[in-house]
Formats: sequence, structure tokens, C-alpha cells
Amino acid sequence: MSKSKIAPNYAGFMAARPRFFSGEDSPRAFLERCIERIDAHDATVKAFVCKSYEQARQAADASTERYRKGAPLSLVDGMPLGVKDIIDTADMPTQMNNAYFNGHQSRIDAACVKASRLSGAVVVGKTVTTEFAIGRSGPTVNPWNAEHTPGGSSSGSAAGAAAGFFSTGFGTQTQGSTIRPASYCGVVGYKPTLGALPLEGVHPLSTTHDHLGLLSEGVTEAWALARQISATIGAQDSLGLNGPLDTPVTAQAPLRVGVMKTQGWEEMDAASASAFDKVLAQISALGVELVWPMGSRALADFCQAADQIPEKSLDLVAMDMRWPFIEYLEKAPDLMGPRIHELIQRASRLTDQDYRAHLLYRDALREAALRLSTEFDCLLLPAASSPAPEGFVFTGSRTLLTYSSFLGLPAYSIPATLVGGLPLGVQLMGAWGQDYMLTRHAAWLHERLCKNIF
Amino acid sequence: MSKSKIAPNYAGFMAARPRFFSGEDSPRAFLERCIERIDAHDATVKAFVCKSYEQARQAADASTERYRKGAPLSLVDGMPLGVKDIIDTADMPTQMNNAYFNGHQSRIDAACVKASRLSGAVVVGKTVTTEFAIGRSGPTVNPWNAEHTPGGSSSGSAAGAAAGFFSTGFGTQTQGSTIRPASYCGVVGYKPTLGALPLEGVHPLSTTHDHLGLLSEGVTEAWALARQISATIGAQDSLGLNGPLDTPVTAQAPLRVGVMKTQGWEEMDAASASAFDKVLAQISALGVELVWPMGSRALADFCQAADQIPEKSLDLVAMDMRWPFIEYLEKAPDLMGPRIHELIQRASRLTDQDYRAHLLYRDALREAALRLSTEFDCLLLPAASSPAPEGFVFTGSRTLLTYSSFLGLPAYSIPATLVGGLPLGVQLMGAWGQDYMLTRHAAWLHERLCKNIF
Repeated sequence: MSKSKIAPNYAGFMAARPRFFSGEDSPRAFLERCIERIDAHDATVKAFVCKSYEQARQAADASTERYRKGAPLSLVDGMPLGVKDIIDTADMPTQMNNAYFNGHQSRIDAACVKASRLSGAVVVGKTVTTEFAIGRSGPTVNPWNAEHTPGGSSSGSAAGAAAGFFSTGFGTQTQGSTIRPASYCGVVGYKPTLGALPLEGVHPLSTTHDHLGLLSEGVTEAWALARQISATIGAQDSLGLNGPLDTPVTAQAPLRVGVMKTQGWEEMDAASASAFDKVLAQISALGVELVWPMGSRALADFCQAADQIPEKSLDLVAMDMRWPFIEYLEKAPDLMGPRIHELIQRASRLTDQDYRAHLLYRDALREAALRLSTEFDCLLLPAASSPAPEGFVFTGSRTLLTYSSFLGLPAYSIPATLVGGLPLGVQLMGAWGQDYMLTRHAAWLHERLCKNIF
Repeated sequence: MSKSKIAPNYAGFMAARPRFFSGEDSPRAFLERCIERIDAHDATVKAFVCKSYEQARQAADASTERYRKGAPLSLVDGMPLGVKDIIDTADMPTQMNNAYFNGHQSRIDAACVKASRLSGAVVVGKTVTTEFAIGRSGPTVNPWNAEHTPGGSSSGSAAGAAAGFFSTGFGTQTQGSTIRPASYCGVVGYKPTLGALPLEGVHPLSTTHDHLGLLSEGVTEAWALARQISATIGAQDSLGLNGPLDTPVTAQAPLRVGVMKTQGWEEMDAASASAFDKVLAQISALGVELVWPMGSRALADFCQAADQIPEKSLDLVAMDMRWPFIEYLEKAPDLMGPRIHELIQRASRLTDQDYRAHLLYRDALREAALRLSTEFDCLLLPAASSPAPEGFVFTGSRTLLTYSSFLGLPAYSIPATLVGGLPLGVQLMGAWGQDYMLTRHAAWLHERLCKNIF
């Protein structure tokens, strides 16, 4: 099986952490290994917009000191992080990959960054985003093949996590911007329940769709960070994330999984479909009962109803984008890419009645998903319709990603197989607010499938 | 009955509007009457942080032209507005009444301001807020008596609407910042259902509690503006506001109203309690059936449960304030008032389990309120425990205001009586999302009670 030179299977943060106490290893040494990889490969990968080695080293030294005293601040104390460049940082500009925000410096950190720092995590730099996380692509390449896109919009956080530049990168997902690049880059992508992690200080596209996302070397690392943020500066007006705070997540096998076979699967190319079939066979062989729509009336109805999601999803996003993009287009029309213009035009053809109708459709489908969760431990579908496409303009189809985004349900992308030498993930989708149980299933599957790609 | 020199009963915007078409009157002339009052009285009232006459006159002239052509953009085309100084405006600084934001200039308008401008409304200036809408008071005085507070935190918008400086002022309400100053200043206050109007571009305190609020000369004007915003740049992930868009709201009598008698009423002084009793007698005499808790088991239970709201409400606000205030306190501790320090300390004593428990309590009480709405057209209680207190440090008790804020239910304050020459309002509270019907009841009551104070 083909191996990437830039995206090997590094020893992860949670595996290294026990040795921080004894001094055999340290957060500072862990950071220096990340910096070595950045210095060796980022000229190719182009994951970063800007880096902050000096502050990172200071933070890692302080963390090292805490472990030496046996008193780290949290499970993620010392964890190196990348921060998508639509997420505010008080010590680095946030430029949205759009010239209108060139040099833009926020006053303070976004809530997720502040919570991470208060928990001891180490911010390494800002990572490339597509324009406002929805428009033109940035320069980042896929660490598995430099002629291919890393996917968007969390391009730099996905590629950087894959290349071992940091343990975990902050991304966002409005329609597919975490799960898709995670699949393309062969890393774990985690998109929590809508609203379960704080979005304050993240440039908005759509309140109905925006999620903070995590792109990580592992399920354990992604979850530890998410859970810790929730306990430190939790999301407002949300029940947030539950589960133990001070111990790494333990894997648990799902027993019965619904295969969410929608029209979106028809977008898959033959090689991807065949590789994905093999992954499903492998999961079955591990003792998981996979139920297809023909085996469950409720699942069949749900999948059929979900086929309306991609179009309605884009309508809601376009309507939500009226603020701030109507005014950006007035003030700097030439700086805004064609996709921004197109979406605001789409919004102008829709009414508040359309908006309400879409929300009511969504709420009904959320109810249906909740009923399904009594029948299945989770749902499963491909994390993308193909491996990373060649070139950098098209960041891939969003269809298979819109379901969990539109419904706000928690989702993971787990690296599952290689297609033509490039990763393809399996997507797990859980019940509203049941992120912890989904995480345990994702951890179980990750332990068993990751050897397929490394 | 005593009359204020600065707060007379001006002919309102909706009354003047029909004459804009004929040219007998015009938005420009209406604006000039506002400016005359500002120039005559704002040296005393101090409602404004900054004014924008030139841009207001340009906007009013453009509006005048549209009416002459018989094609106004909306019901609120030409309506002069004040904007609370925690709400972003692209052409004026937004300074939060805190030195950390001295000279702070936002890139674009807040969503409510942009939607208003797109609908033809005329922004006259920025109005005084208490520090971040929760801390130290500003210089504004009560137009009815310059020795008394106008109430907070929407001080300038309440006082400015009372003094005829603009038709309607944007405020916000986290715990009581719209309904209370409306009561103190003898204007209409409207706090919509939580999330029904957009808050993008408004400095946040608390996602569970922050509402955009309107302080207005009338129910008709407040509703026309709110409804128009909802149709132009509606609130995200909300069903928004319903009801006719192109005709002013028509009054409708409520038939059966629940009197929400809580422990909070015990804060009322004797004169206010007696005056409020007379208002209730007057409402009964108008043919409205008033039901007290002793007459409805469901209402009695609801009122008793609501007595826990004030403390839980403050807990949620304090927890929500962690972002951005933890970092403001780190970066500029000496600039932050004692109330900010105190609330972040309060948050530090609470856990995410406390937060979840409070949300679940709230959700249960929202359910109870929904059941009550099948029994009553709306609920009624005092809009404040007294008229405006003397002095400027204490902006009044929030207890009676926290119920609708915590539950997110729509509420109006309607000027109802004078106590010692100062106004006191009656508060109406409606069912979640039923803002239009509540508005019709509020309009009916306003028509009948406003002669009590003017």
C-alpha cells in the first residue's frame, strides 16, 4: 500500500503525554518535533498563513514546567494547535483569505482559542482557509500528493494535522469544511453537535450551519480538546459536551449501525465505491451489524427525506450570509470572490417564508433522526465521494457532508482506506448531543481502520 | 396630573407618514423637528454619545424623494432612529461606555442597523449605554425629571425616544435593559422573543439572555420597525416575526389576562403599588378579565416556579460573559468596572453542570409558559417596581424584568400611570414566537392608557 512521505503516522500527543510527567519527553520537545516537520515540509504543504514559534515555545516551556511539578492544567496541556485563519487570535492577524481583511488584527482570542490557552494548549500558528471558509481556495496542498487539493475550507488545519505540524487544528464546518478535508488528508475530523462548542470570535457564515470543527491526528486528541473547551468557556445556550474530563476517551464498539444510503452516494466514482464496500465488509467482519435502508423502514424514509437537504442547506446558508456579506459586497465588491456574489444573489431570490419553511423541514427531520437513534448506535456513510481531486480550484463535492451540517448532528470522519494512494474516510453520524457516545464508537473504529492507510 | 416639559406627546411617525405622500409633510421635515428638539434639550438630557446630522439629512432627503414618487421602501422609510452605543455602525464609533473601546470603529453596520437603512430608516446618532450594557451608568438623565435616572442599560435610547429626539431607539435587553428604561421614561418598550431579531454586530453579554430591544414613541412604530428588520435581514436560525408587513398593526383587545404575581412585586413601594392597582382596575373596567394566581392553579404554579428566575438568570449571564470578559479583564483590568469583575468572579464559582441544570430548569418553565398561553391571551405584571429612582448610580431593580428575559418570551412595557410625576409602565408578556398577537394587545392597551400620562 502506498505511503505518503509527508503524512506518516507520528506518535501522537496522548501517547507521548505520560512521559511528560517523568521528563523522558516534554511539551517543549514535542513542539520542537512539530517545528522540525514544519521547517522541513511547510514550504511544500503551505498549511500556515503565519506561525508563532516564539510564543509557542514560551507556552510549551510553561507547560513543561507544570508537568514536571505533576500539575498540568488539563489533558490538553502542551498540545500544539493550528488555528484556521477565520478564528480570532489576539497575537496574530485573522485575514479570512480575503484582501478586505489584510492585516486585520482582533482585540482578543476567539472563545475556543482562549479556552485552549487557559487549558495549557500551545498555538503554533494560523492555518490557511478558503476565502471566508466558502470562496476561493488557498495555496495549501495535500500532504499525500502535492498535485491534489487538501479539501476546503479548513485546508491548512487538515493538511497540517496530516503532516504532523500540530496535534490538532481548529477548523469550522458550515456544509462540509471539516469532514471533507479530514477525509482527503487522512486525519480524524470531528464536527460536534451544532452549538456544542463556542463560535464566538469565529467569522460567521451561517448560524444555522456553522460548527467549530477539529482536525486531528486522533479521536482521543480531538475529543480531549473539545471536551476541555466545553468545560472552560463552554458554548452559550447549549448543553455542551458531556463525558469524563480528566481521562482519555475509551473506545466502545457500536453494535448496530444504520448505513445512510442516499442519492449522494451516486456521486462516488467506481474505485471509491469499491474501496468503500471493502471497508463496510471489514466493519461487518469486526462484528458490527450494518443495516441498510431496505432493512429498516424508518431508515429508508429518513434517507429519502434527506435527499432534499443539499439544496435547502444552501438556501439557509445564503440567507444567513446576508449579514455581513451584503455590506462587504457594497464596500468592497471587487475583493469578494464569485462564490460570495453568487450566494448573496441566491439569498435575494428567497423570502423569510422560504426560510421558515426550511427550518420547519429541518426540525421534522431532526425528530426523525432522534427516533432513529433508538434503533441504531450511529449512522454511517462515506466521508467524501472520492479521494482528494487533482488540482486546487475544486475542493470537492459537499453533498455527503450536508446531512450532518444541516441537521446539526455530531459527525466524525475516520481515515478508512486508500484509493489511488490517497485517503478516503468513513463518516459516522450520531444523535443530537450524544457526542460522547459517538466519540467512543469513532475511537473504536479508528483503532481498527487506521492501519489501512498507514 | 404633572406633565414633563421635555417629554410631551409628540405627533408620531406613523401619524405623520400619510402626509409624506402628499408633500404636506416629509421625512426631512420630520427629521428637522427631531433635530430641533435635540438642539433644544440634549444638553440637559444627554441621550447621545454622537450625532450624525449630515448623513441623517441625506438619508431623509432620499426618503422624501421616494415618498414623492409614491414608492417608499417600507413602512419605516424615513423613520428617525437612535442606536445604542453597543450596536455597530459603519459611520460612527461604537464605544460601549468603556475606555477600552474609546474610538472603536466597526467595519460595517450591525444587522439591525443595516436592515433599517436598507428599509429607508434614518439613523440620527448613537445613544448612551451603561458600560457594556451591564456596568457603570452614563450621563443621561430622565426627561421627566433631570434629577432621576432614565434607567439602564438602554438609557439614551429610552430618554431620546421620550424626548422626541427620534421615533424609535435600538436598545438591548439582557435582564431588564429595555422594559425598565421604557417604564421609567414613559415610552413603549418592546423586547421580542429571544432570537427573533438579529444580534449580529451587537456587543454580546449573554447568548441565553441578549435580546435586541426597541424603545419607541408607540407600539405601531416599534412593531413596524421590528417586523421590517425581520423581513430584510432576519434573525438566523429563528422563525423570526410574522404578521403583515405593509400595513400598521391593528389593535386587538385581550380577553383573558393572567396577572403574574410573584415575590418580585414585594419590591414595589406603596405609592407604585397603589397606582398599579388603579391601572389594573382601569383595565378590568375596559372589559378585560384579569385572573390572579388564586384563580388558576397553572398560573399559581408558574409564578411560584418563576421566583427562582432572578438568581439563575444572573448565573447564566455571568457564565456567558466569560467570553469576551475574561480576556478584557486580563488585558485592561483597571478599565473594567466593579460589576464586570464581580460577574466574572461569580462565573468562576459555577460549573458546566450548574449551567446545564439552569438550562433544563428554563426549558421546563418555557413548557409551562406555553401551556399557560392556551389559558390566557397574555400575562401582565408591573414593568418596574417603582418610577425612576432619584440619582444616577442605581438604575433600578431588575427582578420583574428577569422573567421574560430568562424565558425569552416577548414583552412590552406600556406607559400606564404617573407616580409622583414620573411614569410607570405595565408589562405584557406573550407566548414564545407569538409577538404579533402580543403586539396587537399592547397596541390596544396603549391606545387606552397613554392618556394617563400625557
